[in-house]
Amino acid sequence: MVRSVEDYLESLKSMRPNIYFKGKLIRRDDKVLRPAVNLICRMFELANDPKYRDLLTVGGIDRLTHIPQSPEDLLKEQEMIRFYTHKTSICAIRCGGQDCMSALSIVTYDMDKELGTDYNSRFRRFLEEFQRRDLVIPITMTDVKGDRSLRPHQQSDKNVYLRIVETRSDGIVVSGVKHCITAAAQSEFLVVVPTRAMTEKDRDWAVSFAVPADAEGIKMIVSPVYPPQQRFLRCPYANYGFADSVVIFDNVFVPWDNVFLYKEHTYASQLARLVALYHRHGYTGCKPGLGDIIVGAAALAAEYNNVADRETVWRKIVEVVVVAELAYAAGIAAAVTSTKHRSGTQIPNEIYVNCSRYLSGINVFHEYQVLVDLAGGMAATLVSEEDIITPAQEVKDSIKTYLRRRDDIPIEHIHRLWRFIHDRTCTRFGGYWLAAAFHGGGSPIMEEMAIRRSYDFELRKKIVKELVGIV
Amino acid sequence: MVRSVEDYLESLKSMRPNIYFKGKLIRRDDKVLRPAVNLICRMFELANDPKYRDLLTVGGIDRLTHIPQSPEDLLKEQEMIRFYTHKTSICAIRCGGQDCMSALSIVTYDMDKELGTDYNSRFRRFLEEFQRRDLVIPITMTDVKGDRSLRPHQQSDKNVYLRIVETRSDGIVVSGVKHCITAAAQSEFLVVVPTRAMTEKDRDWAVSFAVPADAEGIKMIVSPVYPPQQRFLRCPYANYGFADSVVIFDNVFVPWDNVFLYKEHTYASQLARLVALYHRHGYTGCKPGLGDIIVGAAALAAEYNNVADRETVWRKIVEVVVVAELAYAAGIAAAVTSTKHRSGTQIPNEIYVNCSRYLSGINVFHEYQVLVDLAGGMAATLVSEEDIITPAQEVKDSIKTYLRRRDDIPIEHIHRLWRFIHDRTCTRFGGYWLAAAFHGGGSPIMEEMAIRRSYDFELRKKIVKELVGIV
Amino acid sequence: MVRSVEDYLESLKSMRPNIYFKGKLIRRDDKVLRPAVNLICRMFELANDPKYRDLLTVGGIDRLTHIPQSPEDLLKEQEMIRFYTHKTSICAIRCGGQDCMSALSIVTYDMDKELGTDYNSRFRRFLEEFQRRDLVIPITMTDVKGDRSLRPHQQSDKNVYLRIVETRSDGIVVSGVKHCITAAAQSEFLVVVPTRAMTEKDRDWAVSFAVPADAEGIKMIVSPVYPPQQRFLRCPYANYGFADSVVIFDNVFVPWDNVFLYKEHTYASQLARLVALYHRHGYTGCKPGLGDIIVGAAALAAEYNNVADRETVWRKIVEVVVVAELAYAAGIAAAVTSTKHRSGTQIPNEIYVNCSRYLSGINVFHEYQVLVDLAGGMAATLVSEEDIITPAQEVKDSIKTYLRRRDDIPIEHIHRLWRFIHDRTCTRFGGYWLAAAFHGGGSPIMEEMAIRRSYDFELRKKIVKELVGIV
Amino acid sequence: MVRSVEDYLESLKSMRPNIYFKGKLIRRDDKVLRPAVNLICRMFELANDPKYRDLLTVGGIDRLTHIPQSPEDLLKEQEMIRFYTHKTSICAIRCGGQDCMSALSIVTYDMDKELGTDYNSRFRRFLEEFQRRDLVIPITMTDVKGDRSLRPHQQSDKNVYLRIVETRSDGIVVSGVKHCITAAAQSEFLVVVPTRAMTEKDRDWAVSFAVPADAEGIKMIVSPVYPPQQRFLRCPYANYGFADSVVIFDNVFVPWDNVFLYKEHTYASQLARLVALYHRHGYTGCKPGLGDIIVGAAALAAEYNNVADRETVWRKIVEVVVVAELAYAAGIAAAVTSTKHRSGTQIPNEIYVNCSRYLSGINVFHEYQVLVDLAGGMAATLVSEEDIITPAQEVKDSIKTYLRRRDDIPIEHIHRLWRFIHDRTCTRFGGYWLAAAFHGGGSPIMEEMAIRRSYDFELRKKIVKELVGIV
Repeated sequence: MVRSVEDYLESLKSMRPNIYFKGKLIRRDDKVLRPAVNLICRMFELANDPKYRDLLTVGGIDRLTHIPQSPEDLLKEQEMIRFYTHKTSICAIRCGGQDCMSALSIVTYDMDKELGTDYNSRFRRFLEEFQRRDLVIPITMTDVKGDRSLRPHQQSDKNVYLRIVETRSDGIVVSGVKHCITAAAQSEFLVVVPTRAMTEKDRDWAVSFAVPADAEGIKMIVSPVYPPQQRFLRCPYANYGFADSVVIFDNVFVPWDNVFLYKEHTYASQLARLVALYHRHGYTGCKPGLGDIIVGAAALAAEYNNVADRETVWRKIVEVVVVAELAYAAGIAAAVTSTKHRSGTQIPNEIYVNCSRYLSGINVFHEYQVLVDLAGGMAATLVSEEDIITPAQEVKDSIKTYLRRRDDIPIEHIHRLWRFIHDRTCTRFGGYWLAAAFHGGGSPIMEEMAIRRSYDFELRKKIVKELVGIV
Repeated sequence: MVRSVEDYLESLKSMRPNIYFKGKLIRRDDKVLRPAVNLICRMFELANDPKYRDLLTVGGIDRLTHIPQSPEDLLKEQEMIRFYTHKTSICAIRCGGQDCMSALSIVTYDMDKELGTDYNSRFRRFLEEFQRRDLVIPITMTDVKGDRSLRPHQQSDKNVYLRIVETRSDGIVVSGVKHCITAAAQSEFLVVVPTRAMTEKDRDWAVSFAVPADAEGIKMIVSPVYPPQQRFLRCPYANYGFADSVVIFDNVFVPWDNVFLYKEHTYASQLARLVALYHRHGYTGCKPGLGDIIVGAAALAAEYNNVADRETVWRKIVEVVVVAELAYAAGIAAAVTSTKHRSGTQIPNEIYVNCSRYLSGINVFHEYQVLVDLAGGMAATLVSEEDIITPAQEVKDSIKTYLRRRDDIPIEHIHRLWRFIHDRTCTRFGGYWLAAAFHGGGSPIMEEMAIRRSYDFELRKKIVKELVGIV
Repeated sequence: MVRSVEDYLESLKSMRPNIYFKGKLIRRDDKVLRPAVNLICRMFELANDPKYRDLLTVGGIDRLTHIPQSPEDLLKEQEMIRFYTHKTSICAIRCGGQDCMSALSIVTYDMDKELGTDYNSRFRRFLEEFQRRDLVIPITMTDVKGDRSLRPHQQSDKNVYLRIVETRSDGIVVSGVKHCITAAAQSEFLVVVPTRAMTEKDRDWAVSFAVPADAEGIKMIVSPVYPPQQRFLRCPYANYGFADSVVIFDNVFVPWDNVFLYKEHTYASQLARLVALYHRHGYTGCKPGLGDIIVGAAALAAEYNNVADRETVWRKIVEVVVVAELAYAAGIAAAVTSTKHRSGTQIPNEIYVNCSRYLSGINVFHEYQVLVDLAGGMAATLVSEEDIITPAQEVKDSIKTYLRRRDDIPIEHIHRLWRFIHDRTCTRFGGYWLAAAFHGGGSPIMEEMAIRRSYDFELRKKIVKELVGIV
Repeated sequence: MVRSVEDYLESLKSMRPNIYFKGKLIRRDDKVLRPAVNLICRMFELANDPKYRDLLTVGGIDRLTHIPQSPEDLLKEQEMIRFYTHKTSICAIRCGGQDCMSALSIVTYDMDKELGTDYNSRFRRFLEEFQRRDLVIPITMTDVKGDRSLRPHQQSDKNVYLRIVETRSDGIVVSGVKHCITAAAQSEFLVVVPTRAMTEKDRDWAVSFAVPADAEGIKMIVSPVYPPQQRFLRCPYANYGFADSVVIFDNVFVPWDNVFLYKEHTYASQLARLVALYHRHGYTGCKPGLGDIIVGAAALAAEYNNVADRETVWRKIVEVVVVAELAYAAGIAAAVTSTKHRSGTQIPNEIYVNCSRYLSGINVFHEYQVLVDLAGGMAATLVSEEDIITPAQEVKDSIKTYLRRRDDIPIEHIHRLWRFIHDRTCTRFGGYWLAAAFHGGGSPIMEEMAIRRSYDFELRKKIVKELVGIV
């Protein structure tokens, strides 16, 4: 059963305050977290709507807590994520927890088979709780990293990567700092995974576990970001925002039941790779969804400006379409050619997933360029809502002249559209978006490396050898 | 049953000579046509190989004569075309005939339903012959076009677009000149389709039909192109080539039985669009196949040069991988989301097909750049095979110094690989390839126009309107 | 003599309040205008510094009020603008007034010669005042434009382009609305020029003149934009900002002495073209200056992260260098190949200027991508200054772990650099900057059109004709 | 005094035959070398034309043998090279010798000053002969290199880099193999320079000298390349071609008088860098010249097709203009900001030169794409000249239909233009051109490395430090 909005809000309210903002401890119902919380609420709301049952749930549970078992599951996930993006202008923020769980379902299974451990049963218990309570969980992956040329064990400050500081009979104690943890502040649990491959000497840093987000020793410093909150103009998109956190683990105890990787350093890279793979698969849905929004906004701007037929206009919009649809197509191909792991979990085709995310990543700045280009200077210099909605008497009439475009388009529609483009391109929210759409799930260089690692180059060499007669 | 190579060669030999080259009439077994004929022979050979039965045949017939009836058919076609590209370094040259037939299966059906004509039964008879005899048929589409700013009926020379010059009780008489007709010279029938949309005034130019390639009144001027033919170095790829023709229709009679469109000008654009769609769908197989060859050659060059690990090298190769795999992925998506026409024919998703072809088209010059870049100057300045294989005594030893790279790579392998890259980039064959990979199936601007025409922009505007509160 | 900061501030203070913000009238010393005013003050300060006399002044006057008379003048201007960009992180905001004056020096001269008018002497009088008082003047050009498919006289709201509404014996009366008028709010005079070519029917819209920025009937709605103002962290760049205005002309009277173009519609396009040319010439200085800042910030980030030697890092930075230096080089070439107008004014080479601005324009989003790429996620998710400088006790130590990179780089330096990158990419200020760097002086399509119009294509055709033997 | 064509041809005829082609020794008046020789002859012819005296000569000598002494010299050289490119469709092939001499004028001077050697006086003697006899000399630089991951002394075949094998009282003996030596076969002297930096252990490979091209022990294997030689259609461009050679040094003796660098390994990189710099400076003339030809051909094709006004057409041509003019502008800037070496030789600004060459290099494939795009399929499938000029009677009329475009353009002009485009894109000549325009003077990665090495990054870091308050 999908959780109710109320239940989620209740849960947040009951959590121990451990979030800091501007030097002060805040509660999870603080207004700076409101847009980030709204985003989650909106998703619960939609998932409870019978109209979307097939898309947003599976076997009675929230699809966002489901581990994919078939190509169809992967296709539906992709479609679901595009849908959530359309409805919020943001994304299906909860996909991260699902991605971690999918990856753990595989790695814990493999470790048990290969090492005789019992990680998978621990994982299954936690999965059951995740699905039953429809929990909100972010990806807790990116360490702060310190000197980028050094491995974890080489760093002078050992906490720049999260690590095991003590092993006890009932569990482990971990310390370290992670950052860029999107949605941590409005989540209930953290599932922690390593951010990179680990060597033998980095064993203490090879760790994965689940822990309540308000557990003793966990502290977050939050960086909320959302569209400007207008007084008079109510735009649905302005309700939703992000909140990234620096997450500090200060001697946090984790009982063995919630530990999924403990110093098995050779599995760290597999886990990191699979979390990235599932998360990038999610991007095959959200980035086309973002493309739809840019296409829609640019096409409306062109329509209102009455220049939709100009080649210089429509070709730019088509460029954005091509990127969005190729990225989506590669997601479809990744599902259709996915493979089933012995654990039952379906693994999307790594090549197509990485090609998709790479394409999206290298084009996101260009997509913004198209939007800024077609919107013109007004998106950047738009005057305040007060100057438009409650202007001084002396400039009232001129405001209409200022905004008007095609005669048949109401001034208010023009204001709404350009306000949106302004907020999307000329605000902290817009800049964050650009960066997130570029780096999220791994910057383009990470996908290039993933493709290099997993592509069958030998097959292509063989084709050429045969053609040129090298035997 | 798939046709034998012998049967095909016999058929060519029996045809009336009507091909001109360098001002003279030549026979179809002339040596300048040999590489183009070899290419077809190789395909018959492979299709007769039991090892490839599932991929290359369907229901006992050659897959290249089959009209797709399901997503699986489309997926198999794509795979088959990539395979033929690997085996010949060229493509599945015969796909064009199949594409015309797929398009006609739809348009003749629709016309019959909507106009009460009987085109579809004529078409079915011809389709039966096509499949039974496993005929070789090119796309006969591109008119020479004259002044590009004028429609057919506005041209001063009416023959720059093919047209009906006489209507008789037993059939029609057509005249006009088409060009860039790839494989016409080694084909047995021509299926003629319009190259563009037609207005009411262009009715005489709205025509489609099948006709033997050596029918009375048909004359071709051929432009064969193939890799340099070496005396000593036998490289499989050098066996295969192209032959484009200017095809002249000089008062050619076509009996009604073979006429599939007759002045129904409003159907001309549908037919042109569908032929392009099916042909571009073929490109979702052959362009990734070409990408594989470029990747393989570049990766081998890097390996032989011993620089495969340099970032400046592998990232360039990965770029080519990304283009190839995204183009292929979009082909998969086009099949998975294809629709079934009431005639039973499966229509690939137009958006994905066009995005795929567009991506391939705009990147082909860049792919060649990567190959030229990584091969270095030697590919362009490579000395003759005689200077390598039978050099003058005085330079014999230095030739080894000239060619050698990694010690463990035989000199001959280096010669073969760089000969291939040379032939692929610094010959008439190579230049033709570049142009063909850019223009074939429609230059990028054609795909942009197709996307603009068929994409659901209103849906995207609606998404944005909802987000900004325009109701 | 260069003006003192005090004199400028005194002048602003003495002006009639006619600026609106958030629905209210504000004074020119309002704190929302402070950063925009600071920018101008900083420039006066630098120009008064004897160290920079040669670069920032000429013949005893502020170089920003000088009309270029030689290639050397143009070269110095370019250098000066790059310098001001370095010192403020913004640009030489006052260049606009100079550009309008340079253009008017030519057009008024030509009109007088060709039409027998006396515009040039009026212009000279105003120029003398401009130089003597060292006035701050923006480009007042961009009309709000209404329906973009219609000319001025076709619009239903005649005020979407500024126009002459009355002709009197002592002058003219104008009405209309302009927007995107950068620096209008901190300027003393406006020099108004047309935004496009005008036809015979648009004669009433063909007008140019100078007017005090607080003249009767002029009203501005301002949109200030500047970096976040921190409480504890004082960063020089945060002092400077922009302020664009919607400028409303509500029956503004202009005496003949200040009118420089009156209904001579055929000269409107020449004037618009020349203002754009001079302004784009300014961009050959400021955009390389902006490139320097991006290069410097990216190189520092790489140094602090200890990855400056990685190919994937330095090649991206070199890409930004190439764009900056080619844009600057084209500015040098434009000066060296400039021509002297009969009025004495030096005209930079139109081709090189437009190529330079075009290159800068199409690359600005990519430059930001490089910066975002190399800065990593922290620039987007950076926590508040309070959380860094005055953190809660519980997280104090972890903040150091969070920020640290190379051991030898002080935490504060890391904070300062990432704060800058954050402010430059993830704020309203950053988004405005991107849009301004793209659109300012004319979006790339405008330069393409300018190049098309002024390039000597016939010469190139002739070269080819000679080579191929067409005589 | 500029040399006469006859004198040059006489000189070639008198040389010892040491050139191999297709396994056989050929003479320098062999017809396969004719186009390469024609190119040089054409240049002597033009330089002797009084009309071009100012551009092509300086102080009574051929400008191509002059060492630049001032910014004006550099500007003139650039202009001269663009001019030669226009007249031959190729380039100023002789610039290479001049570039080597300019570099040697500096390095020999520095060595003498710093090491007390007398290289400069030797060099001056040879320079005097070069200028007096107006000698043809190529850049003899690129070693065959063997395993690209190894330095010269690490190679198993020591001859993959040219080296000193014996030191005698009267001179040195050298052995090794160089390749890609453009114009060696039609040259009279070789000036040999190192291809890379050398370490202490590579001292034997650190060598530079001049030697007659037919000296004892020198053997060349030539690879001539030129446009197809038509029987009926005489097109000026078809007269000119290239000839690259593998140049074998088989125990070649060089008297001390002609030795300019002998094991001073630390000067090898300076020499290599300066030769590259001067040669890349030449590219600031020839690549814009090539751009002019592509622009001219594309513009003519558009004109003949009657589509010159379509946005999709002219914008593509403008793209090529922008690349050409920015590359040229950077050459101008490199001259204007050049520096004078203590030897008197003028050194162009390294940053601008490398930015220019880099821009040209990364765009050359795109420029070809524009040409292929606008020319359409006919350039690739063009039938033979016989089929056009002496067609079979049966197809005579249709040939006119085939070629015709705008009614007012003669068929022959269309044939000539498309023949040119065909030869430029679909021949060995065309492919060679693409590769040469990409790799010549150093592939783009070489310019990136040069920029990285010589750019003042510290200055940019300092600008940012000041802005953010890092002191």
